[in-house]
Amino acid sequence: ADDLNELLGYGEETAGGIMAAEYVAVPPAWTVADVTEEVRRVARMVEEVYAVFVVGEGRVLEGVVSLKKLLLSPAERSIAEIMERDFISVTTNVDQEEAAQVMERYDLVSMPVLDGDGHLVGRITIDDVVDVIRSEAEEDMQLMSGVSGDESPMTSLLKVSRGRLPWLVIGLAGAGLSGLVIGGFEESLEQAVVLATFIPIVTAMGGNAAVQSAAITVQGITSGELWTGDAFARVGREAVVAACNGLVLAGLLCSAVAVLGVAHAGPLALTLGLTMLFVVMLASANGALIPFGLQALGIDPASAIGPFVTTLNDILGLTVYFLIASLFYL
Amino acid sequence: ADDLNELLGYGEETAGGIMAAEYVAVPPAWTVADVTEEVRRVARMVEEVYAVFVVGEGRVLEGVVSLKKLLLSPAERSIAEIMERDFISVTTNVDQEEAAQVMERYDLVSMPVLDGDGHLVGRITIDDVVDVIRSEAEEDMQLMSGVSGDESPMTSLLKVSRGRLPWLVIGLAGAGLSGLVIGGFEESLEQAVVLATFIPIVTAMGGNAAVQSAAITVQGITSGELWTGDAFARVGREAVVAACNGLVLAGLLCSAVAVLGVAHAGPLALTLGLTMLFVVMLASANGALIPFGLQALGIDPASAIGPFVTTLNDILGLTVYFLIASLFYL
Repeated sequence: ADDLNELLGYGEETAGGIMAAEYVAVPPAWTVADVTEEVRRVARMVEEVYAVFVVGEGRVLEGVVSLKKLLLSPAERSIAEIMERDFISVTTNVDQEEAAQVMERYDLVSMPVLDGDGHLVGRITIDDVVDVIRSEAEEDMQLMSGVSGDESPMTSLLKVSRGRLPWLVIGLAGAGLSGLVIGGFEESLEQAVVLATFIPIVTAMGGNAAVQSAAITVQGITSGELWTGDAFARVGREAVVAACNGLVLAGLLCSAVAVLGVAHAGPLALTLGLTMLFVVMLASANGALIPFGLQALGIDPASAIGPFVTTLNDILGLTVYFLIASLFYL
Repeated sequence: ADDLNELLGYGEETAGGIMAAEYVAVPPAWTVADVTEEVRRVARMVEEVYAVFVVGEGRVLEGVVSLKKLLLSPAERSIAEIMERDFISVTTNVDQEEAAQVMERYDLVSMPVLDGDGHLVGRITIDDVVDVIRSEAEEDMQLMSGVSGDESPMTSLLKVSRGRLPWLVIGLAGAGLSGLVIGGFEESLEQAVVLATFIPIVTAMGGNAAVQSAAITVQGITSGELWTGDAFARVGREAVVAACNGLVLAGLLCSAVAVLGVAHAGPLALTLGLTMLFVVMLASANGALIPFGLQALGIDPASAIGPFVTTLNDILGLTVYFLIASLFYL
């Protein structure tokens, strides 16, 4: 059905793209007995029947009758009398993820799809929703991991290589920028090569904090809990959490420096402690903000988790680290 | 319903934990008219009826009748004659994710849940499956991001901080090990501080390649496409892809060194090229292997993507890098 829908001009990831044209539609004047006979007639063609759609002139949808209601109504009743006139429907151009959310929210097993003028053109069933949720989750996981959306364990090796290489090359370019930051402070490093030891700690902590903050924001956007207007409130919350966690990490790192008994322990501990606090706060704030930015640009916010924010925070974190070291350590 | 099921001793994430005890069950001797009357009687209590379960002595499940079949059968027919005797069911202790996979595979809207002796104890409906898939996807995303499973955008700040801190502390410990690797080569760095510039490139490329390889493996395990026996075949595939991509990255990095015109460009390019190739291959191989290992230990394989493999590959990558540099550059 999906390929046919695309031929008919419906977008691949829309309600029109996933709907099926196999459904039972009857005029409002029919009786329950007539409709039951119609269900019997089409039973072989329409595999799953959960509801019957009642349509008027020009297939305008007027009501919906569940199979249970049909079974429990007297044979001579008119279908117009028993149909539900307040029904939930979507139009063909609604995003498939939104259509899935509507069916989930209202626990629908079957939902009519209408064109712009209210004419019935198809239906979406709950197994389509299951497919949408499964594939959106896989897509998010792949976006987060830097893998092209159509890779599976069985994809040909050449295609796998071609799909992953762009992400690696972008990652290389990003890491190259981090390298340039370090290169810019080469004189500082020559004065105190011990500073190089803490590079992985600075980059790892920034990356981890940003990914944590981004993941929760993306989850909130995807599930419909968070809206664009919530962006600054989220950044505020993340800043508070980051200040707490940053202080704990700073304390641990300062204790480690004290225990290890390195030279110039005081200034080194001050440098590392301040760096931790600033880097974790900066990373948490941009991790919370970027998904909203991507969403506003029409890009899947899940792209924010993973390589993109970690690379950005490598660059930011190293800059902060060497600047603080220049002030307090060198 | 879920809380009651837990009181009854069913595991939270099992078929018994998510099933509902509201269903329509009838004896095989009843007629279609009797069963229709029974559906009418319980219609108010059981919100959604998709199928009727036919049970014999001691509630042993003998067959299933869909609502459509009931609607289309003559009133005087015996229910035993029209019921489907080959039905799909699960037992209470089956993992909820496995139960969801079964319903997806066979496009079921409702599935009976049996105890160990074949007695009907409940049913799972498709909206439960939707919830399971959604929550498993969120759980995977959180595991990948180092966030505790029960965090949402509305969780209290203290709880958020407490939930994330353990991951950050583990990350700090891992990054500390990377720091020790660099510290161990401090003399090499004093000889050639330019080597520090490439630290972020080595760690980023190892981490990215490992996450790509782990994500596809986890997806294959979760969807049931990959089994433990496939582990070595997957590592083989990943090694081939990694060799190709590693060579391209090595080439790009060598070209960059040549263009930038640094001192000792030849040995530096050789060091970086060999490091890229080894690090990307090593990372892809362990990224493919670790999810199988976790699965065998009963740990969610999605834990492999994210902080865990990136930290491991930071340590491995830096060791490989400085060893190769000691051999060819210093």
